Amino acid sequence: MATLVLKFGGSSVATPDRLQRIADRIVAERRAGNDLVVVVSAMGDTTDDLLTLARAVCPDPFRRHPRELDMLLSAGERISMALLAMSIRERGEEAVSFTGSQAAIITDTMHTGARILEIRADRVREALSRGRIAIVAGFQGVSQEREVTTLGRGGSDTTAVALAAALAASRCDIYTDVDGVFTADPRRVPTARRIDDLDYEEMLELACSGAQVLHPRAVEIGARFGVPLRVLSSFHPGSEHGTRIARRERGMEELVLTGLASRAGFARLILHGLPAGMRSTAEVLRRLAEASISVDMVSEADRSDGRRQLQLSLLAESLADAKAICESVLAEQGGHGLEVRSGLARIALVGTGMHGRPGVYSRAYEVLLAAGVEVHGLSTSSISISLLVDEGQEDVALRTLHDAFGLGEGSR
Amino acid sequence: MATLVLKFGGSSVATPDRLQRIADRIVAERRAGNDLVVVVSAMGDTTDDLLTLARAVCPDPFRRHPRELDMLLSAGERISMALLAMSIRERGEEAVSFTGSQAAIITDTMHTGARILEIRADRVREALSRGRIAIVAGFQGVSQEREVTTLGRGGSDTTAVALAAALAASRCDIYTDVDGVFTADPRRVPTARRIDDLDYEEMLELACSGAQVLHPRAVEIGARFGVPLRVLSSFHPGSEHGTRIARRERGMEELVLTGLASRAGFARLILHGLPAGMRSTAEVLRRLAEASISVDMVSEADRSDGRRQLQLSLLAESLADAKAICESVLAEQGGHGLEVRSGLARIALVGTGMHGRPGVYSRAYEVLLAAGVEVHGLSTSSISISLLVDEGQEDVALRTLHDAFGLGEGSR
Repeated sequence: MATLVLKFGGSSVATPDRLQRIADRIVAERRAGNDLVVVVSAMGDTTDDLLTLARAVCPDPFRRHPRELDMLLSAGERISMALLAMSIRERGEEAVSFTGSQAAIITDTMHTGARILEIRADRVREALSRGRIAIVAGFQGVSQEREVTTLGRGGSDTTAVALAAALAASRCDIYTDVDGVFTADPRRVPTARRIDDLDYEEMLELACSGAQVLHPRAVEIGARFGVPLRVLSSFHPGSEHGTRIARRERGMEELVLTGLASRAGFARLILHGLPAGMRSTAEVLRRLAEASISVDMVSEADRSDGRRQLQLSLLAESLADAKAICESVLAEQGGHGLEVRSGLARIALVGTGMHGRPGVYSRAYEVLLAAGVEVHGLSTSSISISLLVDEGQEDVALRTLHDAFGLGEGSR
Repeated sequence: MATLVLKFGGSSVATPDRLQRIADRIVAERRAGNDLVVVVSAMGDTTDDLLTLARAVCPDPFRRHPRELDMLLSAGERISMALLAMSIRERGEEAVSFTGSQAAIITDTMHTGARILEIRADRVREALSRGRIAIVAGFQGVSQEREVTTLGRGGSDTTAVALAAALAASRCDIYTDVDGVFTADPRRVPTARRIDDLDYEEMLELACSGAQVLHPRAVEIGARFGVPLRVLSSFHPGSEHGTRIARRERGMEELVLTGLASRAGFARLILHGLPAGMRSTAEVLRRLAEASISVDMVSEADRSDGRRQLQLSLLAESLADAKAICESVLAEQGGHGLEVRSGLARIALVGTGMHGRPGVYSRAYEVLLAAGVEVHGLSTSSISISLLVDEGQEDVALRTLHDAFGLGEGSR
């Protein structure tokens, strides 16, 4: 008998009616002969509603009262998981719900953004051995100091995949409000196509580049422990579609372009006329890291006049702090000036075998140029190329690249 | 430094605004030099809202899914206690919230109506020793099998008084939406007066007879462990009024009438012509107990024809089941018939030294007769007399007795 972990997000359990449809689905999976662990998020807007209450009594609960905020937010999954357990029991199957603490999801003590250290899950295993469906609260755990913690963004995905790893489950199914992972956001690129199979690394790159469907932390855990994942819709029951994510065998040098993802809200900074050599770059990056500012792309060029030009991209929310730091480094090091451009979107072209293929780069540039899209920066990883474009040109750039690389319906 | 337990009910914490007023009050008590443990209920209608959700997925969650219902309902206090801890911390005092499980409020396994077996409260004690205000979830505990349980009606009062006993607190203050315990319900008897001091037994009798202000279970624990209690308003801060409840010294034979309480929704059954002797009464009571029907008053009379007449009163909600049982016993034992009267209210006249005082009985009868109130049954305990009257005459009866026994304003 296979053990499956099924994860349902907040929109899948937003109302008693939806909860009951999910319960039907779970019961069908059970009667197909599987041992089931079900991970649920809080219902619909519950977490936002609780945050609104917290903000009514204090200005910044995340910084000022993280321990109490975790206590507050962890109420949300209790509600959805208890209601789901009742709904399943009403359908004649045994079900029992567990909090993060009861499931022994042990985390560090970093409230509101805890990391999982270990999952013991003894009570979950015992429930399975008695033929029960185990419902586990997503997003929450218990610290080594016995405090309630929450896992931050993407927490329920993380809970689900980590539980699947701990239980050596055959698969972790992530039910969401879309049909799977697409070659690009279908709202932006009408010819976007659902991808049937992805490698963990491709999924990670897509998730990090703006694909909302699955959180990167969950993908990383899946990759580390080799948990087969599936992303599918909770609103199209009976559909066996969805995207499978697993280790994939490919031809050694095969180039496979998988899809596009994008994310708006970036800014680019160019520091002109720094002293040549690595030291000035290192100083800028160190000071930004000390201020907890994540830098996305970095590129540098030493010019013929012996000065260095450093280019950075980062999320616009860090721009003010980053500008102040860059200006201060430029002043200390006798640099020539700072150039800032905001309102940028970062587009990622993801696929394996792309590294060191100049053809992909040049083709991307060529088609964007022809489409009148200006590129303000680029970077590569082993499986992706990322380009910065003006936010107003994001959709044109996505559609142009999607067509140019043959990602559309029927093109493969 | 005295340790005080303060309990705030759902209406006291119904909105962020009220929560913040409560926080002001708690901070003032802290700055007056007391170690504080604060017990809170869920905000306003939260528990009812959660029950509505449960009933949307199953018809009778109490019977069908009590374990999951407790998981669901226990979300309510998490929300109020975390918000209250944040509000107190915003005012510059240290505060930390604990669930029933974290406070180690150990109960039996009777979900939705668990009894407290033991309170370890190690983490509460540790918080106090570090100078923190401990906020504890009312109404909830954890069973010996590590399941979340709830304590049923009056649960938060019970948590507060039991914690006060476990911590050997100097006092337990029950903050509510009225100014204390009154000689009668002020909405029914305009001359009703707040009582300054009560004995545990008087309070218990008033609480069992319909005074809503404090749950009988909490009073029983207070009496058993000698915890001084105070009932006072959370809406009149600064008022030092309220009702104190403690062991009281009184003149050995002093008659003290304390107050009146009443409760509607009773019914009376008279079984005519049962065989004489105790056996027929015992049979009726046994069969009712087997059906979990609580009997309020019982009286019996053996008549000159050798037959017995048995009179019972009980809550109207059990009437249909009770009637069926009585009819079946009458049929088996050759009884003569059943007489049923519903729509009755039970009025209790509470005070110490009343037992064996025929003067109180006769005066009560006399004044009710003069006021045109018919009495359909009566019973006594050591500190109370209870009378059944038609519900339509409840207010007249209360006012008549309140005046006749001099309970009104300025009369003592």
